[in-house]
Amino acid sequence: MTDFGRATLPYCSFVRPGEERARVGVGVGTDVLDLTAASAARGHVHAGLFAAGSLDPLLAAGPLAWHEVRTFVAASLDAFAEHLSPAAGVELVLPFTVADYVDFYASEHHATNVGRLFRPDGAALTPNWKHLPIGYHGRAGTVVASGTPVRRPSGQTRGHDGTIAFGPTAKLDIEAEIGFVVGAGSTLGEPVPTSSFDDHVFGICVVNDWSARDVQAWEYVPLGPFLGKSFATSVSPWVVPLAALAGARVDPPRQDPEPLAYLQDEDAWGLDLELEVIVNGTVLSRAPYAQMYWTPAQMLAHLTANGAALRPGDLFASGTVSGPEQGQRGSLLELSWNGSHPVLLDDGSSRSFLLDGDRVTIAASARLAGGRRIALGQVDGQVVA
Amino acid sequence: MTDFGRATLPYCSFVRPGEERARVGVGVGTDVLDLTAASAARGHVHAGLFAAGSLDPLLAAGPLAWHEVRTFVAASLDAFAEHLSPAAGVELVLPFTVADYVDFYASEHHATNVGRLFRPDGAALTPNWKHLPIGYHGRAGTVVASGTPVRRPSGQTRGHDGTIAFGPTAKLDIEAEIGFVVGAGSTLGEPVPTSSFDDHVFGICVVNDWSARDVQAWEYVPLGPFLGKSFATSVSPWVVPLAALAGARVDPPRQDPEPLAYLQDEDAWGLDLELEVIVNGTVLSRAPYAQMYWTPAQMLAHLTANGAALRPGDLFASGTVSGPEQGQRGSLLELSWNGSHPVLLDDGSSRSFLLDGDRVTIAASARLAGGRRIALGQVDGQVVA
Repeated sequence: MTDFGRATLPYCSFVRPGEERARVGVGVGTDVLDLTAASAARGHVHAGLFAAGSLDPLLAAGPLAWHEVRTFVAASLDAFAEHLSPAAGVELVLPFTVADYVDFYASEHHATNVGRLFRPDGAALTPNWKHLPIGYHGRAGTVVASGTPVRRPSGQTRGHDGTIAFGPTAKLDIEAEIGFVVGAGSTLGEPVPTSSFDDHVFGICVVNDWSARDVQAWEYVPLGPFLGKSFATSVSPWVVPLAALAGARVDPPRQDPEPLAYLQDEDAWGLDLELEVIVNGTVLSRAPYAQMYWTPAQMLAHLTANGAALRPGDLFASGTVSGPEQGQRGSLLELSWNGSHPVLLDDGSSRSFLLDGDRVTIAASARLAGGRRIALGQVDGQVVA
Repeated sequence: MTDFGRATLPYCSFVRPGEERARVGVGVGTDVLDLTAASAARGHVHAGLFAAGSLDPLLAAGPLAWHEVRTFVAASLDAFAEHLSPAAGVELVLPFTVADYVDFYASEHHATNVGRLFRPDGAALTPNWKHLPIGYHGRAGTVVASGTPVRRPSGQTRGHDGTIAFGPTAKLDIEAEIGFVVGAGSTLGEPVPTSSFDDHVFGICVVNDWSARDVQAWEYVPLGPFLGKSFATSVSPWVVPLAALAGARVDPPRQDPEPLAYLQDEDAWGLDLELEVIVNGTVLSRAPYAQMYWTPAQMLAHLTANGAALRPGDLFASGTVSGPEQGQRGSLLELSWNGSHPVLLDDGSSRSFLLDGDRVTIAASARLAGGRRIALGQVDGQVVA
């Protein structure tokens, strides 16, 4: 259970034992505040946004409402004792309805590692990589809540001897990512500039983009990843509003070549976050988000540069977060170098890829100016046969 | 306006002049039957499915309800005169809420042509092409109703001299496709076999998957098409139920190599359809669906082979339908051979790709056993600057 500070105030959707209907919650320490009940009891002007129990109406309500609700919660916390209960005692469910899901590929270290592994005879980065944030659409319908068991998927693969076969993946992997949750939509035909990032993006969540590397390697040319990814994408139950991350903004890495005008991010959205990758209790990696090459504002500007409309609930993820060091890589593909250097767990066993029964947690935190670190939630999942 | 025979009975969602709310309609000749009103007036057991005016509840209701509704409509047509009005006098809107959108690449002729154009130095078909139906996820949020103007998208491209620039696409194209509309969903983790195709798929629509070829060519390696496609995908207002296509089933082309067991389609879903591509009134192509290499049942089995769940409203399209002949190609990329052989229009002008103001129609029909041809609807769109 994540212990949230009182300045973070992330949102969730939860169900109390014995109840059917969901409620909107706010994380306060290790408690959850029942915002559906508290806002109704206070007769708050935005109480209607929480009646249905999902974050969908709040997302669609836009930045002024986001600000007003956060101000209301922060100012009233001490008066809310009757609406607090331990988060460990409730069921945290998928917090919003995912409209479209896009996955980017914004870490230079990750893209370089994957390029070396998947295309050993070519340049590690494709020629377009430093000119645009590469991304693709994933399957929104298989985005699942943290804690949902992940069944080892089957798929078609080609063996070293050229044999084509269908069966359970032998290379089940994780990808540690940050997800950006779109609140306010946009109009078809009208690009969203980098400067409007926080008019549209409500907040962030932690994402594990489960991957079947053997399936992906065989299928992905020429139209990109499909079944190697579409079986499950897990998201943290907590959505942390951008407002909580103001103190974690840092300069992103220098971009060379200079990006085209539509990708320039004047008030750059670098974020000093860390993603801890934990398998069966062993911390395998601490991936530094601050080193991501493309900022989320650039991702959003690119995503909409052709006029594609945004809808409330659109989710775009950063792609695997990997730093330059071995202990900073956000996937087993990179950590084990495609199985050639298995990683050791604390129980003495080793892993190239995930085994049935393995429990994976990706926990994110932010380092604020001044050095204080705040928790941002985590995403859990166990592999089942 | 499409003239439907009385055995086709496609569904739509429509809005009457001066009204706000949508109604579910059935195409009868050039009229639309107000099924929302007719079913309510008769107190039909399924009337509730049509109250909201979109096809969403009917899709989710499953095959028994689909059969019962079709039987009710067919049996009652002559008693429905008061609920018929000319389809030309109402607004046909997006008939269902698109959940996930997947685009396949199932025409061997199309994939071969594109491979020759995009990868002139390699084999036209990638090594995986005859082993699995290649597909990728597209943007559900930019699937639009027939008639929606399509604004020429801007995007990033690389010129012949290597210059990277951002601006309006110079290679705006169409893709003539058939879309398969999923009704009944499936459970996460449980693949849908080819034999269950018609338990899940409700019917078909006509799709124009607009494409910006210059954007696509620069962005698509390594993660597939993204902004070159995501600005708009137009669908016909009519969804033709599979039940209307029973007489159009034919054997698909022989598959060599034999597909793996999970892709075998015993009672094969080849369909003898034709897609007419019309630009500014000139018929440029008549693309034969019967020659598609992969059947829609194989596409669905592949899409779910990793356990990916289906939701009502999922849309998967065939990819561009192209036959072996010049006059059977479903994209301008192929028809003009990437601009090297512009096509002539009846007004004396020529086209490599679309110009602002161009009007595109893709009209589909089915040839039933015995040779009679029935209309399946059309998708229209005009390019605006």
